[in-house]
Amino acid sequence: MKTEIINIGDELLIGQVINTNAAWMAVEMNLAGFMIDRVTVIQDETQAILGALEQSRMNSDIILITGGLGPTKDDITKEALCQFFNTTLAFNLKAFENIERFFHQRGISVTELNRKQAELPENCTPVHNQNGTAPGMWFETTRDRTGEKVIIISLPGVPFEMKSMMKDLVIPMLKIRFPQHTIIHKTIMTQGIGESFLADLIEEWETQLPSNISLAYLPHPGIVRLRLTGIGNHATNIRKQIEEESQKLQKIIPHYIYGYDDEQLEETVGRLLKERKLSVATAESCTGGYIAHLITSVPGCSVYFKGSIIAYANEIKEKELGVSAESLFTFGAVSEQVVKAMASGIMEKFKVDLAIATSGIAGPDGGTDEKPVGMIWIAIASPSGITARKYQFGDNRDRNIRRTAMQALNLLRKTVIGEPF
Amino acid sequence: MKTEIINIGDELLIGQVINTNAAWMAVEMNLAGFMIDRVTVIQDETQAILGALEQSRMNSDIILITGGLGPTKDDITKEALCQFFNTTLAFNLKAFENIERFFHQRGISVTELNRKQAELPENCTPVHNQNGTAPGMWFETTRDRTGEKVIIISLPGVPFEMKSMMKDLVIPMLKIRFPQHTIIHKTIMTQGIGESFLADLIEEWETQLPSNISLAYLPHPGIVRLRLTGIGNHATNIRKQIEEESQKLQKIIPHYIYGYDDEQLEETVGRLLKERKLSVATAESCTGGYIAHLITSVPGCSVYFKGSIIAYANEIKEKELGVSAESLFTFGAVSEQVVKAMASGIMEKFKVDLAIATSGIAGPDGGTDEKPVGMIWIAIASPSGITARKYQFGDNRDRNIRRTAMQALNLLRKTVIGEPF
Repeated sequence: MKTEIINIGDELLIGQVINTNAAWMAVEMNLAGFMIDRVTVIQDETQAILGALEQSRMNSDIILITGGLGPTKDDITKEALCQFFNTTLAFNLKAFENIERFFHQRGISVTELNRKQAELPENCTPVHNQNGTAPGMWFETTRDRTGEKVIIISLPGVPFEMKSMMKDLVIPMLKIRFPQHTIIHKTIMTQGIGESFLADLIEEWETQLPSNISLAYLPHPGIVRLRLTGIGNHATNIRKQIEEESQKLQKIIPHYIYGYDDEQLEETVGRLLKERKLSVATAESCTGGYIAHLITSVPGCSVYFKGSIIAYANEIKEKELGVSAESLFTFGAVSEQVVKAMASGIMEKFKVDLAIATSGIAGPDGGTDEKPVGMIWIAIASPSGITARKYQFGDNRDRNIRRTAMQALNLLRKTVIGEPF
Repeated sequence: MKTEIINIGDELLIGQVINTNAAWMAVEMNLAGFMIDRVTVIQDETQAILGALEQSRMNSDIILITGGLGPTKDDITKEALCQFFNTTLAFNLKAFENIERFFHQRGISVTELNRKQAELPENCTPVHNQNGTAPGMWFETTRDRTGEKVIIISLPGVPFEMKSMMKDLVIPMLKIRFPQHTIIHKTIMTQGIGESFLADLIEEWETQLPSNISLAYLPHPGIVRLRLTGIGNHATNIRKQIEEESQKLQKIIPHYIYGYDDEQLEETVGRLLKERKLSVATAESCTGGYIAHLITSVPGCSVYFKGSIIAYANEIKEKELGVSAESLFTFGAVSEQVVKAMASGIMEKFKVDLAIATSGIAGPDGGTDEKPVGMIWIAIASPSGITARKYQFGDNRDRNIRRTAMQALNLLRKTVIGEPF
């Protein structure tokens, strides 16, 4: 079973957009048991599309295409597919109704350009696009000479439209069409330790993994996901093996594991707060609202999240959070005293059970010898008191903000479950 | 002149690593006047490498390869190149001296594995790697049948090694070998209008573009970038042409253009506030701190950004922002009255020149017939008064938050420069 991805788009070939679609599709296809053999990126240009399709049809059983389905002139994938299959476009009522629904929801009427998006090659089965106006297309064809079946699927390049179509429709359909070896994954979510240190800690465990179980490290700023993949014939056996290995790992690095199976830290925290009927607020300086943003990215967070004060200026720390001018003067804004006062200030003011406070030097400027860029203080306030911790991260502003947020959410999680830190 | 990139690496095909190398190389090659026609990502596997090389040699004049040059077993690019050119590996003293230098600097001695990195295909010219132990390789070959010249360059996949080799050696050499057409890009940043409506508005202008100038639409949540690309012999002429077209466009859609050349909206706003010595704060409900996060993602923002109140709970809107209980009861939190009161509340409290307030139903839950998911109110407060606008976005929480933030920042920008909205 060979699978290829073809990403169409000039923007990918001048480097204006990084090809994250291919990486995301590869991960999801892998999880479903399909390995990607090749990714090809080509221009919005008929000959390039025809050439890539011709070549892929010779080599692969499944061809996933993204891009070039927008309503504008530079989007020509549909026309190229018509040429490839020697067919023509036909108006598709169901696709049109989806476009109408989409526009109607936004209180606007369908333009002629968008009406054209309901025209599809006659030989395709449309793939419903819940989040946009360009339908996907599913084609069944055969390889020249051998006559073997080849499936070609064309999807929009807009990541958010493509992703839900892949997850909800394309992958489930492919799984039915191609029953595979059973592949079972389990992801172990860790926070607070870098990839290479983690690898050192778990080396022995990694070496003794059964041969049908593999491990992948998936690092993100502040988070390392460990993905166990088991392959075999019996789902129950593989699941049992993976469960055993996961429990061994839990014993080796209990303090770094915060959750499983791609649960985001803000989701874990939200779930715990909801279960225990606790409320939270944040007082943020260097993270500038990013922690509040993560917390509020979880639907239903209004049950436990009351709000935040982003105290970027010192006068806001003083006036709104009750940090004393003396503390600010004596210890500076990036200090244990100030971050603790911020946490206690927001807790009292917003009348919450728990609070996070952050203060640090995100960079690239503002560092000194004593307080270099990347130095961050985090405080957690709870009914049993206020605890603060100092961290020294790197010199990248964006990464420092993200790592601080992840660290702060994990300290909050530990506080909620009563784990020391 | 056709150029291709071949990225070799299993990690790219399981989505573990996003292919940022291709994007970076494309940008740099473009700036040097070479368009990339195709990017192919393949496994560390001999047949895959030979197949890709064979195919690329038929189509392209320059082939840039990355990856598979490390010292470990899974790195087989060099062996595959030997097979492709029907040659063998030979020890290269200069390459070895570089490896020695590299290890010596770090106070360690050269291992047998690394010594092998100094063995190179006999027909290549080595490309010096200042930052690592794997030399690059420059091959000159010809296309079968036609006998046209083809250059194949193999570089390490480690971004930081590859980048300096490209910049310092490969691109300068290619420029000498192939005096090029000049390619010039200009990106026009728009906000507040969807791709298809934009296309309708500018269709006439698009049609009259000179044949050597092309247009691409690059949509993101809340933002559409328009990229003009000009090709020709004289940089000055192309630049002039692009400038003229950009000015024509400016006249057609003045209210949607906020900036040029990939300037982010939060950067534009920051630049304007700095220039005019104005301060800003935000009072956020549905955006939950995301606007504050964007503002504070710009280094140096402390000059103009004082802070925010994230008023997720109604009691915080009342107590901290002075929204009246009566307004909240009569009109609801998602209303013109409340969002205006939030804006005026934060402006007074934080003593800033400008303020943004947001209140809406981000979804997926919480919608009603009267106030469906995606309904958002944004208010901007300035010394000349408070203006509020209502928007109806879609049903995806994350996108609603992003679009609201972009819209709010653009309304702030317009307020600062005195443009009505």
